[in-house]
Order: sequence, then C-alpha cells, then structure tokens
Amino acid sequence: MSGAVDDRLARVALGRLAEPGDPRVASLVAELGAVTLHERLLAERDDQGLLTDLAARLEGMDPARDLDRAERLGIRFLIPSDDEWPTQVDDLLSAEPVQQRGGPPLGLWVRGPIRLDQLAGSVAIVGSRSATTYGADVAADLAAVVGRSGVCVVSGAAFGIDQAAHRGALAASGPSVAVLACGVDRAYPPAHKALLDFLADEGAVVSELAPGCSPTRLRFLSRNRLIAALTRGTVVVEAAVRSGALNTANWAGRLNRTLLGVPGPVTSAPSQGVHQLIRSGAATLVTSGEEVLEMVGVAGEHLVEVPRGPDRARDRLTLREQQVLDAVPVTSGAAADSIARTAGLGLIEVGSTLTRLHTRGLVERTASGWRLATLAQG
Amino acid sequence: MSGAVDDRLARVALGRLAEPGDPRVASLVAELGAVTLHERLLAERDDQGLLTDLAARLEGMDPARDLDRAERLGIRFLIPSDDEWPTQVDDLLSAEPVQQRGGPPLGLWVRGPIRLDQLAGSVAIVGSRSATTYGADVAADLAAVVGRSGVCVVSGAAFGIDQAAHRGALAASGPSVAVLACGVDRAYPPAHKALLDFLADEGAVVSELAPGCSPTRLRFLSRNRLIAALTRGTVVVEAAVRSGALNTANWAGRLNRTLLGVPGPVTSAPSQGVHQLIRSGAATLVTSGEEVLEMVGVAGEHLVEVPRGPDRARDRLTLREQQVLDAVPVTSGAAADSIARTAGLGLIEVGSTLTRLHTRGLVERTASGWRLATLAQG
Repeated sequence: MSGAVDDRLARVALGRLAEPGDPRVASLVAELGAVTLHERLLAERDDQGLLTDLAARLEGMDPARDLDRAERLGIRFLIPSDDEWPTQVDDLLSAEPVQQRGGPPLGLWVRGPIRLDQLAGSVAIVGSRSATTYGADVAADLAAVVGRSGVCVVSGAAFGIDQAAHRGALAASGPSVAVLACGVDRAYPPAHKALLDFLADEGAVVSELAPGCSPTRLRFLSRNRLIAALTRGTVVVEAAVRSGALNTANWAGRLNRTLLGVPGPVTSAPSQGVHQLIRSGAATLVTSGEEVLEMVGVAGEHLVEVPRGPDRARDRLTLREQQVLDAVPVTSGAAADSIARTAGLGLIEVGSTLTRLHTRGLVERTASGWRLATLAQG
Repeated sequence: MSGAVDDRLARVALGRLAEPGDPRVASLVAELGAVTLHERLLAERDDQGLLTDLAARLEGMDPARDLDRAERLGIRFLIPSDDEWPTQVDDLLSAEPVQQRGGPPLGLWVRGPIRLDQLAGSVAIVGSRSATTYGADVAADLAAVVGRSGVCVVSGAAFGIDQAAHRGALAASGPSVAVLACGVDRAYPPAHKALLDFLADEGAVVSELAPGCSPTRLRFLSRNRLIAALTRGTVVVEAAVRSGALNTANWAGRLNRTLLGVPGPVTSAPSQGVHQLIRSGAATLVTSGEEVLEMVGVAGEHLVEVPRGPDRARDRLTLREQQVLDAVPVTSGAAADSIARTAGLGLIEVGSTLTRLHTRGLVERTASGWRLATLAQG
C-alpha cells in the first residue's frame, strides 16, 4: 500500500502496526492526526536511504482489504468521526498511562447490534476468573438487576465473574457487551464461544484489535482500560490481591468513573482485593444491583430504600407502654411495684399496662413476677 | 439515711434512684454536683409539706451499706475523683443523648484486677447475638490479635460476637473487660457465668448499675454508650439491620471514636448492618486484627503491611524478558518472528529470550509455535 489513505484506513493500518494502548501512538495521532502520522511513517528512511522496518511493514498492508473482510464477517470498524463512536473513551487521552498502556483506541471493531454510542450510562461488572460460587452468584444477581433496568452490563467474557455478569444480564433480557483482548471474530476463552456468539447476536462484542488477532497479557491490560472508559461505573465483585480486575478498577479511578466493590468474607482470598479498594476509599461498598444503579445512575433516577428490619411489636406501643416495657427485667421476674419504681410511674397504671403488654405477648409472668418475653428482647 | 453524705455515697444513692444513662440526672450532677443534688432531692416536699416520692426513696437508702456489701464481694465503686476513673467516659457529657440515654455514668462498679484508667487505648469488639460461625470466628481472630498486642478487648459478654471477642482475647492471654447491663455480681446471660467469673479474675467486669440490679432493654442501651465511651475504637463484626450493636456504633460515632466494620457475604443478613455502616462512610472496613490496631493505635505504633499476592516468576524477569513474554499469545502458538514483530524486537534476541523463558516454564512450544504457559497467565 502506498499513497494517501483516509482516516479510517490509516487507523486500521496503524492499529496493525502498533500494540493496542500504546500511549506514544495515541499521542502522535492526537497531535498529527492518523492520516499524517501514517504518511510520515510510510516515508521514513534510514541512514542508507532504505525504508525503515515500520515503513516497510506499513507498505505491505492492505487496510481496505481488512475492512472488506471484516464487513463480510458482520464486523464494523468505528472511528472517532463516526456517529456511533462512544465519545467517553476519549477521556483516555488525558489520563496518565498505567503499566505503559493508555490513550484512546485508534478505532473499535464491533460485532453485534448494540450501538456503542448508547453505552455512556453502562456499568462494568468485573472480577476474578477464579471466582467462588458466592462471587459468581452475586455477580449474576447484580447484573440481572442492572440489565433488567435497561442499563447495559459490560464485561470481559472471561471465566468466573465476567461470565456470570454477562449471563446474569442476558438471563434478565438485559443488554450486555463484551470487550475482548483479541479479535472480535475469535473466541477467548474458547469455552465461551457460545456466549460470545450470543452476545454478537443480541448485544455486542468489541475490541481495538483487528479480526484475527490473538490475546496477549499486554492486550488484556489494554482491554481493561477500555472497559473502564466505556462505562459510567465499574463494579468489582471478587478480586484477589493481584487480580487483573484491579487494573480495570485502577483505570476507573483514573477516569473519574464510579468505582464500586462487593464485599465478601474476610477469610476469602478472592475478596481481599475488593476489601482493599473499599478500605482505601477508592471504591464504595455495594451489596445489591439497586445500590449499583443508585451509584451510577443520574441522581434521583434510581433511588434505593435503605433496608430496615421488620417492624416489631415494640414499634407500635404508646410512649407509656414503652416506658413500662423498658423497666421490665430481662431475666428473673420483678413485681409490679418494683417495675413501677424503676419506671417512675404509678403502681395502678403500671399494673394495667403490664396486663396489656401480656396480652400482646411482650411480657410474661413468672413465679417471681413479670419479665420480658423473648419476642420483646431486642 | 439523712443528712450530709460525701460524693461517693451521694453517687451510690442517686444511682439507685435513677435509671443509668438518664441524661437529666447527668446534667444536674454536672451542674450542682452529686452531693448538692442529693441534698436538694432529699429536702423536696410536695404541696402538703410531705416528702416527695423521690425524697422518701432517698431517705430509705443506705449507700454506705451498699458499698460495704460490694467490698465484701470484691467490687469497688469508682467515681470521677478517683485516680482509677476512666476520664474518657466524661466525653459523654457533651454528646447528644440517643433514645433518651446519655451523659457520663454517676460511678462505675468494677470487679476484677484491670484498672479502668488503663482502658484509654482499648478496643470494643461488638456484634450480633445471633452471629454466624463466620462472624464468631472472625471476632475471635481479631480479638486474639488485638489482645496479643496488649490492647484490651472490651465487649458486652452477650451471646455471639461479644462472647467470641472475649474468648479470643483471653485465648491469646490478652486483657479483656466486659461491660454489663446488670450488676457485676450477676451473670447475664446465665450461660456466661464461667466467662464472667474468669473475666472478674483476669480482666474486669464493669457496670454503672449497683450489684444485684437486673438487666432491662433500656439498661442495654445505656450500657452500649459506655462500651463506646470507654474505648478508643469500636469494631462491629456482624450486625443485622436492627441490631443493638448499631446502637454502640452510633455512640462511637457521636463520641468521635474510630468506628470499624468487618464485611461479610452480602447474602448474609447479620452483615447487612455493617455493610450499611461502611457504605455510608460511618465505619471503615477492616479485615484483620492488624488493621484494627493500625486504625485505633497511635500513628505509627501499629503498621500493617498491605497484603500482596505471592511473588510471581513474572516479577523476577528483566525488562527485555517481560517485553517478549508480553508478546507471546495466550492461546494458539505463534512463530518467533511473529512474536518479534509484536514485541518490536529483533528476531535473534527474541529467539534466545524465548528459550530462557521456556527453561523457566513461562512459555511452551506447540505445533504452531510459542504460547504462554499456564503459570505465566496472570
């Protein structure tokens, strides 16, 4: 390939040249534009006047053919000038790189009907591949509640929490999107091929890597920044101390997204990373999908009722009845006059009140007098 | 009894007259002093010139005999002018009452060798009576670590978390103190008689109620404020949404004590109250006794190492080895020249590096080339 190409073709070619999330490329594209950067690289010669390795590689590419082939596979390639471009990922331009990864993607390869410009209010649910059944159950429950409300659940299609999140959303007929560290035509992990095909039919599968590309560890790190950037908030369900999910959490924090964590037993290693996030103040503790929606939703859009214990018989008492009840001993019984003294009330009144409380099962009569019934101990 | 009494006797008598934690009495004592309040009440007559009920009751009391009897039982009665007075409870004077309870205690009945003026750095560990085995195990573990460091564990000797906290501290030969809602000569709950006797021998059992007094619901609420006031921080291990432990937590907050919460499964009702405390920012999440000590200790006194995952083979690589490893695909293998292109490194160097990585078990050779070994997938 040689000569002038348009922005889309330039981005396809640069994407093949550089690893995704290379912050140097992102900043050169931001500075020069993809077309100019492409031209400059293509013209680069070494001391002997020969094309540099990069230039030679660029010249050997055929991005138009890449796009054709992708289209035949039902895959589109979005670039920032497209209406469907999820503009929130441009926040990556001003965020500091993490582990040498950063910057907005050159473009996004997409397979599936969900439009990416609809993801501004979406929620990422991520966590350990080695999840416990507790973690997987909670992730699926959260995702079902989030998905049922029409909010898209974004995750990485990995084993464990990711899979549970996608499945939870899909089971509730909610929208779900997977962001991959390989081409969107590939199934990684292979065991999730059916899940990924289903997402491609009903939701979307997204990657900044061209079709056919393999996953590498670095590509997972790059992918994590996209999950954080695409969504309004990230929920970490289980994450051991060195889990990749904490990399996504880190990105969510850097991008000023809402970061939420689901606690678990302190004895459970897969919850340790989440507990650290909550403890350090980086993440807010959440226990339900409703709380997730409240935290990431537009203010007032999703209001969560603070859970209360069941109403107790005690709550329905008059003030006087409460005063008497509060003076009744818990263990060995006391006579009415002793209770009257404790309560600072008259004996007659206390006697009749005790009878009413007895009728309602709140006090009981023993050999030594009145004492609290189990029901009233609180 | 009539005529002038000293401060200690006046406080014993007033303590018998009023319910513990009656904020009106506490504020009158703060205003007039216990001796003057006692005199005024004793002289109070009604319209017909007869002693009021309160005056009659005061006149019938013999606080000197109460003190004698307590002394024979090995019980001392501390008042604010005593060296052993735990001055931190005076913080209750300026805290707003909760549920009509508040104010510093008139005095403290104590049974056991621990001096209460040594409790300024102590830690309360409290929670549900209907604890899970998870909660009880965690409470005992936290208490053992706290106790082993010489910091006193204060709790309420109730079933569940309280009991586990005392036992954990005692098992680690650590100091422990129980604060009761009844006289310190009584065992409530009766099943904890041996525990309370042990605490009286090795630690201390404390109450603002005179020996012989029975527990009532109101007395539990009053007792909770003392647990919070006596200690530097309160750890809530499990507490359902309406648990009494949340009353202690509330007091800890009002008294500007450190409030800590141990998370649990979000599916566990006894953890719900704790999760609310953490979520609202009232409590800080803790997962270990070391973290508790760090949070309540004098700065730098207890430093907790942030848990890290085990060192991985990956961490011991050179930068160049990392770069190559990062370019190796996860699934199907790739040839060395393809890996060299991805890594942006020379083929010769990549070839020798792959061999070294193979020796260490980080990459494996397949029919189609090199791929990451399971060990290296992170």
